[in-house]
Amino acid sequence: MAMVSIDLDMNRVTNERFLEKANSCAPKLKEFIVHPVSVVDIRKNGRDYPDVSVLDVPENIPNYHMKKGDKLCLDFGDHQVGYVTLKLAAVGSPQDAPAYFRLKFGEIAKEMVECSEDYDGWISRGWIQEEYIHVDVLPTTLELPRRYAFRYLEIETIDTSLKWQLVVEDVECRSVSSVDAADVKPLETEDEMLQKIDQVSIRTLQNCMQSVFEDGPKRDRRLWIGDLRLQALANYATFQNYDLVKRCLYLFAAQTREDGRVSACLFTEPQFIVDDTFFADYSLFFAPILMDYYEETGDIETLRDLAPCAFRQIELISQLFNEKELIEGEGSVPNMWCFIDWTEGLDKQAAAQAVYIYCERRARRIAEILGEAEKAEEMRLDIAKKTDAARNLLWDEEQGLFVSGEDRQISYASQVWMVLAEVVDPGKGGEIMDHVIAMDPEKGMVSPYMNHHFVEALLMCGRKEKALEHLKYYWGGMIKLGADTFWELYNPENPAESPYGSSIVNSYCHAWSCTPTYLLRKSM
Amino acid sequence: MAMVSIDLDMNRVTNERFLEKANSCAPKLKEFIVHPVSVVDIRKNGRDYPDVSVLDVPENIPNYHMKKGDKLCLDFGDHQVGYVTLKLAAVGSPQDAPAYFRLKFGEIAKEMVECSEDYDGWISRGWIQEEYIHVDVLPTTLELPRRYAFRYLEIETIDTSLKWQLVVEDVECRSVSSVDAADVKPLETEDEMLQKIDQVSIRTLQNCMQSVFEDGPKRDRRLWIGDLRLQALANYATFQNYDLVKRCLYLFAAQTREDGRVSACLFTEPQFIVDDTFFADYSLFFAPILMDYYEETGDIETLRDLAPCAFRQIELISQLFNEKELIEGEGSVPNMWCFIDWTEGLDKQAAAQAVYIYCERRARRIAEILGEAEKAEEMRLDIAKKTDAARNLLWDEEQGLFVSGEDRQISYASQVWMVLAEVVDPGKGGEIMDHVIAMDPEKGMVSPYMNHHFVEALLMCGRKEKALEHLKYYWGGMIKLGADTFWELYNPENPAESPYGSSIVNSYCHAWSCTPTYLLRKSM
Repeated sequence: MAMVSIDLDMNRVTNERFLEKANSCAPKLKEFIVHPVSVVDIRKNGRDYPDVSVLDVPENIPNYHMKKGDKLCLDFGDHQVGYVTLKLAAVGSPQDAPAYFRLKFGEIAKEMVECSEDYDGWISRGWIQEEYIHVDVLPTTLELPRRYAFRYLEIETIDTSLKWQLVVEDVECRSVSSVDAADVKPLETEDEMLQKIDQVSIRTLQNCMQSVFEDGPKRDRRLWIGDLRLQALANYATFQNYDLVKRCLYLFAAQTREDGRVSACLFTEPQFIVDDTFFADYSLFFAPILMDYYEETGDIETLRDLAPCAFRQIELISQLFNEKELIEGEGSVPNMWCFIDWTEGLDKQAAAQAVYIYCERRARRIAEILGEAEKAEEMRLDIAKKTDAARNLLWDEEQGLFVSGEDRQISYASQVWMVLAEVVDPGKGGEIMDHVIAMDPEKGMVSPYMNHHFVEALLMCGRKEKALEHLKYYWGGMIKLGADTFWELYNPENPAESPYGSSIVNSYCHAWSCTPTYLLRKSM
Repeated sequence: MAMVSIDLDMNRVTNERFLEKANSCAPKLKEFIVHPVSVVDIRKNGRDYPDVSVLDVPENIPNYHMKKGDKLCLDFGDHQVGYVTLKLAAVGSPQDAPAYFRLKFGEIAKEMVECSEDYDGWISRGWIQEEYIHVDVLPTTLELPRRYAFRYLEIETIDTSLKWQLVVEDVECRSVSSVDAADVKPLETEDEMLQKIDQVSIRTLQNCMQSVFEDGPKRDRRLWIGDLRLQALANYATFQNYDLVKRCLYLFAAQTREDGRVSACLFTEPQFIVDDTFFADYSLFFAPILMDYYEETGDIETLRDLAPCAFRQIELISQLFNEKELIEGEGSVPNMWCFIDWTEGLDKQAAAQAVYIYCERRARRIAEILGEAEKAEEMRLDIAKKTDAARNLLWDEEQGLFVSGEDRQISYASQVWMVLAEVVDPGKGGEIMDHVIAMDPEKGMVSPYMNHHFVEALLMCGRKEKALEHLKYYWGGMIKLGADTFWELYNPENPAESPYGSSIVNSYCHAWSCTPTYLLRKSM
């Protein structure tokens, strides 16, 4: 399933003042020098995740005299995002040929035993973190120009010559982030698994907080608005770096489609540009992100600057509603009009209807704060109409669940978003959640992003125990598989799954997976 | 046949004064900016050498929008040695993934259709001129740090993404050499093939004349004394860059094995060091190179400085002679004691005996010039003894040819070197050459280096017509196959041959192949 949107005719309009504000909030990245903690052996074992065993202490790295075909796998002890420098030398006779070696970086051990050559997925193989390098003259200090996201680094000597061997004298990583996990107080709990889940959440968030909130430092390394919403919430509960949220809000507002529509994602290099990808839910999220930010900071100037952009998204998406006040899909690529989750064949109508209501509630609150009474009242009426339509047309009384689309599909997503949007009260929401869990519909949850909303809905309905249980089952499941940071994708029933045709391009430190620290700190 | 010599216990002694003299003669490289002349298609045709057809003018290069799997092959019009810079950009939607591409450089078209992955030879695959490169942010100006030897450059887009394509906006090569072929007067002849052979010789020499006389700018990129001797002769006939010869002589003398033995080759990067490879003939050649240099320049100071080193090589190799005054092999690797040629199974005794005599004649002349009468007389007697032994014990009267080793092997090499060493007079030499050509012994000539000595022997014996015929057959044969520079290896009967297990690591601009300009200018 190739999910790409292309609109080469898209006209972009730029607000230079907003861009200046965004740039004035750009962080100075903190740097941390990190060295390998051991030499390891990573070996397939017939299961999904390989065995990792420690072979040697890092002090012995220079003692490995690497000839053709030799490999040296280094463990940096934790997930790093940074720039690697290798000090290389030759031993033996004079170096009579270029050193030729491959560097392979892996966020988790599994990537280290996957074969890049076999990759045949639909997203770019350029994301596979490996380099083939020739060095004509040794010794040398090789400063790699690219940034990598990794815990493991394997150096494979493709060739030296019969006369000399390659030596790795030293390796270091200059890890970068706009924040430092050491500044965050530990979670107050005796539960070791919850402590661990909290720590790994924070590491995930830290490693995604660069010049913007990136979705994943391995891939795609850019700002998506759906991820931003969750990162901002986790950030408020931990680092409280408000400027980075402010920067990202201004960036999304600084360039839109000519009709004012906020893009799903944006790039800051080589120069700032928003993408030609649009999801209904992602554009709508501008309002709740702005409202959350204001609630945290009281920054009325930013609220005033950016409210029109938030309102405009509601206005634009309101055009997708039919005469029955139900939202309908748009665009030529089926199911690409709204994100919700990666679940194959998921009908998104009900969830999108709920997301709209959820977001318009926040937009209405913004209007109230800014004293725009008329707009607020308009929105109140609109929310009521959309809520009524959801209750009357998307509710299946017999099944006691919300349904979506012409085929009246039942999914987790529909129930979760209806609860979050307060289409039902917490009491009824709790029943719905119990019901959908018992039923376990075929249209399940795929992404950590969807699982986050599931847990949040449970907490909203007072199902704290069930919420903690799911946190331990889902995020704890990744930890049991060795996660140092939480993943882009995790299916407890099929841990090796990938939406890209191969897990080698999966991102294993992914923003939308970082929320347990927020959910835990909010609920404890 | 892996031909490597390793002596990790070798003690090197350095003469700092000589090293300073060598460094004071280091050239400032000339630079030439070169652009592609066309876009070409190189296609296998079932024969040894592929077809090259012009597809487009270079002005259209930026019009190629390269998606996954697309290739663009550029022709730089002639053999280049230099540093390549590419201006790259993206077209389409914003660049949402790293650009990942392969650059492949080929001295000749054949390399472009050879598959690097299939290489299984014994010398380092690091010599294959290809790079796998990721570029995270486009547009960019990519200055490749390594030097390449090439005429063709293929850019293969391994991946972009579904959203954008790679564009090559501009490519240039900053070609380098210590000399400029434009400074050399054309050969005075009406014969177009001889003119072409002369030009290609000069291009070959130019592209090997860098900070030292390199053997090949693709591979091995270092100074070998056997190549130096021939390069110096070709240089005297053309560029007359005397300082580069002086520099190389001082370098070989500046560091030797502790017994004073001159190494077969040396490196200047990362710092000057001589290799642990020794060939009897290569050490002996120090004397003729020095004598040739003095004859060209009259530089008595250098002759006086370096004569002891020349004498010492004669002295050291004289220890290899047995009581019958015949030279014998040494060392643990069979046939690695003396180079002569790459011919498999070649017995090197007779040729080595002759090389010794050839070199001692030049050493004796040096002694005479320096007024060292006693040493000159000693050498005269020694030359006579070795010549007598050759005439008495290595001559087969019945066959009318020189023989070598216990099995009394007959080869071109033995005859050629006996002629060059003046063991026979030109009259008898001519008969021997006619005879060996008619017989065409199984132990033939493999390298251009051996073919050079064959032609030189023919010229010495007044066989000018035969010499020119062979020049056209051998070097002209390479030109007919499209050579812009002469090759490390060429077998007219098997043009795809390689001593390395695969021709993809062959060097197609190789110093020891550059001598036709010398042979032609000397004989015309």
